[in-house]
Amino acid sequence: MATTGKQLFTTLEADGTLTVAIEDVSFPDPTGNQVLVKMEAAPINPSDLAILVGGADMENATYSPGKFVAKMPEAVNAGSKSRHGIKLPAGNEGAGTVVAAGDSDAAKALVGQRVSCLPGHAFSQYCIADAAMCLPLGDHTSEEGASGFVNPMTALGFVENARMDGQDAILHTVGASNLGQMLTRICKEDGIGLVNIVRKAEQADLLAKIGSTHVVNSSEDGFMDQLCSAIDDTGAFYGFDPVGGGQSVDTAFKAMEKVAVRQMTEYSRYGSNQAKRMFIYGRLDTSPTVLSPSYGFGWTLSGWLLFPFIQSAGQETVSRMRKRVLDNLTTTFASNYKKHVNLDEMLTKEAVTDYRAMKTGEKYLVTPWS
Amino acid sequence: MATTGKQLFTTLEADGTLTVAIEDVSFPDPTGNQVLVKMEAAPINPSDLAILVGGADMENATYSPGKFVAKMPEAVNAGSKSRHGIKLPAGNEGAGTVVAAGDSDAAKALVGQRVSCLPGHAFSQYCIADAAMCLPLGDHTSEEGASGFVNPMTALGFVENARMDGQDAILHTVGASNLGQMLTRICKEDGIGLVNIVRKAEQADLLAKIGSTHVVNSSEDGFMDQLCSAIDDTGAFYGFDPVGGGQSVDTAFKAMEKVAVRQMTEYSRYGSNQAKRMFIYGRLDTSPTVLSPSYGFGWTLSGWLLFPFIQSAGQETVSRMRKRVLDNLTTTFASNYKKHVNLDEMLTKEAVTDYRAMKTGEKYLVTPWS
Repeated sequence: MATTGKQLFTTLEADGTLTVAIEDVSFPDPTGNQVLVKMEAAPINPSDLAILVGGADMENATYSPGKFVAKMPEAVNAGSKSRHGIKLPAGNEGAGTVVAAGDSDAAKALVGQRVSCLPGHAFSQYCIADAAMCLPLGDHTSEEGASGFVNPMTALGFVENARMDGQDAILHTVGASNLGQMLTRICKEDGIGLVNIVRKAEQADLLAKIGSTHVVNSSEDGFMDQLCSAIDDTGAFYGFDPVGGGQSVDTAFKAMEKVAVRQMTEYSRYGSNQAKRMFIYGRLDTSPTVLSPSYGFGWTLSGWLLFPFIQSAGQETVSRMRKRVLDNLTTTFASNYKKHVNLDEMLTKEAVTDYRAMKTGEKYLVTPWS
Repeated sequence: MATTGKQLFTTLEADGTLTVAIEDVSFPDPTGNQVLVKMEAAPINPSDLAILVGGADMENATYSPGKFVAKMPEAVNAGSKSRHGIKLPAGNEGAGTVVAAGDSDAAKALVGQRVSCLPGHAFSQYCIADAAMCLPLGDHTSEEGASGFVNPMTALGFVENARMDGQDAILHTVGASNLGQMLTRICKEDGIGLVNIVRKAEQADLLAKIGSTHVVNSSEDGFMDQLCSAIDDTGAFYGFDPVGGGQSVDTAFKAMEKVAVRQMTEYSRYGSNQAKRMFIYGRLDTSPTVLSPSYGFGWTLSGWLLFPFIQSAGQETVSRMRKRVLDNLTTTFASNYKKHVNLDEMLTKEAVTDYRAMKTGEKYLVTPWS
């Protein structure tokens, strides 16, 4: 007997009309290594927002119960051709209780357990998830486990990636984010140097409170000098940036190069030989990335995504990372939420306007049964 | 007894005054593994131009025999602080005859031989060079050997680097340059796929004549479609760009992603998983590099320089590359020059205006004794 429930879908038409709506759907029975999870909590992550609202004009959107219709600006729409006309689910991760399973032993063993999962359609009352990607939560609540994957594994992934590349220090351009706080705690625990960039004094205070030793405020006079000094102190020529657009990465490379050039004994028209490495792992700013020709040729910039990293890291590393997350779910990897909303409430103008602003410490949690 | 001769020096003052002048200097006796080379020919490469004229206002410069004085725009000047007030030599490479040597056997063995060398001060009547970096030219003339290092080793370096990264096709954004023509011949000889981007029909003809199978003209209608089709044909998700500024790299990444997305069976908000790799190895355009958020996260962009590559490639690879250059100096690795100028003539308004335009096929050769 098929299970029915509400699920969110997002559709962008070729003419730029974006429709996001809750529908009643029928969920298939899980097969093989699949489980059916009754979802209890799912965070709205920055990585979900691109597909939920993207660059759409939400101010002038039409809102009705369980639905909004908005216009996507032509520049963004033209770059989204591959999703035109396709009804897409949304919600990377969440937590809930396994209510049915496919034939595999791994799947059957999860029935009745509360798990973190990564279904890709977590904004839904039920989800089909891969048992291999489910993390049994034990006594933890779904709220505690809802963000147990993306941010914790990403922050741990940065540190793993740095170690693989022989680095013992990291620069993070948005230090006070939920992920940034996790990264701060991980680096402190592991003795990895960390330079945190923030935009506000209260964010600097917050990070100092959890043990960050090198916090630099980009709104302060002398920011560049302070950034250079922090890089010099830690040796952080390796960093991660969730902003993407504008000069966030450029600023980091410039500061790294300044520090490297100071250590050179001879002028070189090609800049320093110090290898400088940055990764863009998000697009908080969807404008183009701007790289000035001011740090020679000794730099590399890459996109960074969790899933390719996990695939390349190998099962042993990933298992170790997951165990660490579970063991420290309410401490190192704790997430905080500003507000709980159900599926209908998450599509109101008030909610959309608030969560798409992606303010530090103001994350929303979707609780589909509330 | 010290050897005396003319040498070019370039000095940028803190106030933005750029002085390039020929001076009579005394060259030290070579020691250890050094040789003293009487320079007969040195090309003016794009890599030399940054230090020779950079972004200076050459139209309103003051020219006198063996000297010019120009103003550097403030934006460029501010980014050049590390060279302020330092009198720098110029000229990466050249060829000439070894007239004296240090104590080492390697150095002594070169006396009397004509060599390609890499002194870093090749715009000079004499140079001190490292014997280990000298390439004996045998019966070749100095003009034939003058460009025997930078372009040949860079073009070979691209192919070596591609192979190290498991690639069998390359994209080159300035296909018809001297280096681009060498790359075309190398790829043809080695069975490596090559997508050449050019700006003019005559450049496309030139490349087709030397055997390039995939030439795409950016000035033509349907450029993007043709570029995608060439990438699809060759599998070139790996490329090199000497432009640096503007959207040269962005265009390449966009086309690579279009090809990759066409091959996907399912939409992903994160773009394709196809790894896309570009290297910036020059700055023909000194404006910022612009990367649009339109090809997901599966891309990496790096600066690329010959010397770090050589250091990382290992002696065996480098020896093999050098032997190949010498064996094919007048065929695969032949360079052509528009004009010969002596040290004084290279600082006239007419010459500077012409060679700084860096037009394809219009390279200058400095012949310091003519």
